[in-house]
Amino acid sequence: MNETIQLLQNHRSIRDFKDQPLEREVIETLVKSAQQASTSSYVQAYSIIGVTDEDKKQAIMEISTQPYVKDNGHLFIFVADYNRHLELAKRKGYEIHFDTTESLLIGVVDAALAAQNLAVAAESLDLGICYLGSIRNNTKKMIEILELPEGTFPVIGMAVGYKNSEGSFKERLPQDTVYFENTYPEFEQIEASLNDYDESITEYYKTRDENKRQDNWSEQVVKKLSKMDQVRKDIKDVLNAQGFLKD
Amino acid sequence: MNETIQLLQNHRSIRDFKDQPLEREVIETLVKSAQQASTSSYVQAYSIIGVTDEDKKQAIMEISTQPYVKDNGHLFIFVADYNRHLELAKRKGYEIHFDTTESLLIGVVDAALAAQNLAVAAESLDLGICYLGSIRNNTKKMIEILELPEGTFPVIGMAVGYKNSEGSFKERLPQDTVYFENTYPEFEQIEASLNDYDESITEYYKTRDENKRQDNWSEQVVKKLSKMDQVRKDIKDVLNAQGFLKD
Repeated sequence: MNETIQLLQNHRSIRDFKDQPLEREVIETLVKSAQQASTSSYVQAYSIIGVTDEDKKQAIMEISTQPYVKDNGHLFIFVADYNRHLELAKRKGYEIHFDTTESLLIGVVDAALAAQNLAVAAESLDLGICYLGSIRNNTKKMIEILELPEGTFPVIGMAVGYKNSEGSFKERLPQDTVYFENTYPEFEQIEASLNDYDESITEYYKTRDENKRQDNWSEQVVKKLSKMDQVRKDIKDVLNAQGFLKD
Repeated sequence: MNETIQLLQNHRSIRDFKDQPLEREVIETLVKSAQQASTSSYVQAYSIIGVTDEDKKQAIMEISTQPYVKDNGHLFIFVADYNRHLELAKRKGYEIHFDTTESLLIGVVDAALAAQNLAVAAESLDLGICYLGSIRNNTKKMIEILELPEGTFPVIGMAVGYKNSEGSFKERLPQDTVYFENTYPEFEQIEASLNDYDESITEYYKTRDENKRQDNWSEQVVKKLSKMDQVRKDIKDVLNAQGFLKD
């Protein structure tokens, strides 16, 4: 197993960072690594915003309600972005289209691939990272804070920094419940393996030092997803206002 | 610069593979690396389908119209997936919701982060990779081929294999046109840098050995995006049929 694979397989989210900003050179290395990820048809339909302004970080922390959004080495926001294409098109006399679901998928995937490269690069430098889906708690406000124009949408954030803790490793689903060959299986084929996983997660929650809880994966995610109709209900409207998802 | 960052920054897409399937152990290592990527709230809303059946590969190649979809070491399809959660919920007496735009974003981002980890792991083993957005040319057919149930959607594919060529390095946008701090800039602030990039890409296209073309990035992407209202127009309907994007 080579170093890179060890690094990937050893990932854990870090939520406690030293009060030490990332050096300019480190930020540039991370962004360069992010940029070299594949993008759909070379369109490069994303941007990255680094947030250093303390007032803006405070405002984003109030959206996310997570202290490490403010207390970190650097805060990155990954944005699906057709704005530069839009401006270029105006100047060249073309009309471009990014209002279909397909165009949104392209922007979101481009942004996510760049984000994951940035995460891997950061971890290779022994920095910690934590993804922040929580920036989507209020995308309208995020757009105001970062002054995001037409054709852009904040997909996901990431706190990066020098680690104050090593985090804890979270066991993933058994491979035979996530990876299939040729056809998607009947649920009965993966049920026993999911049950084993639940038992193993229950053990983990019992034994870990902090945040002990009585729970298993199935219970946890099913409860969470049963409330998903109540959260971030404005995402479609905000996307529409930015010019997306009109089909 | 460490090995992992070198690897990330040296990425190039490979479209020509040896006729040599990936070993079982390699596939397991790649999937394990993919699985360790972050997922939203531990929900793990994705699956990966490996396609080895020659008839299925042929059918997917006809959708993608790219020969390396068939001729590779292994073909991976990354699927946004709430089906296992749905089945668990039925058995536990819950009703889960994944029909909002937010839920789609979660599934797509989870699938993309896993995919990029798999890509990085593959390249660290000196394998080549090429992303296949082209599987979305006909997602309805993809769903039939892979027998994808309710709550699933094929987001992106990836051909992986032993390399027959080293590919060519594609220069990305200048960092100052993609990475911004605190606020999104006016277009005029990035225009000169974009022009420089166009000139550099024109030079690249003139000098490369194969596929010489007279073009620059701006022209290329603006033309492409001007036709985006004509491609993959059924994505929203197919998502709806799978239970997504009903908001």
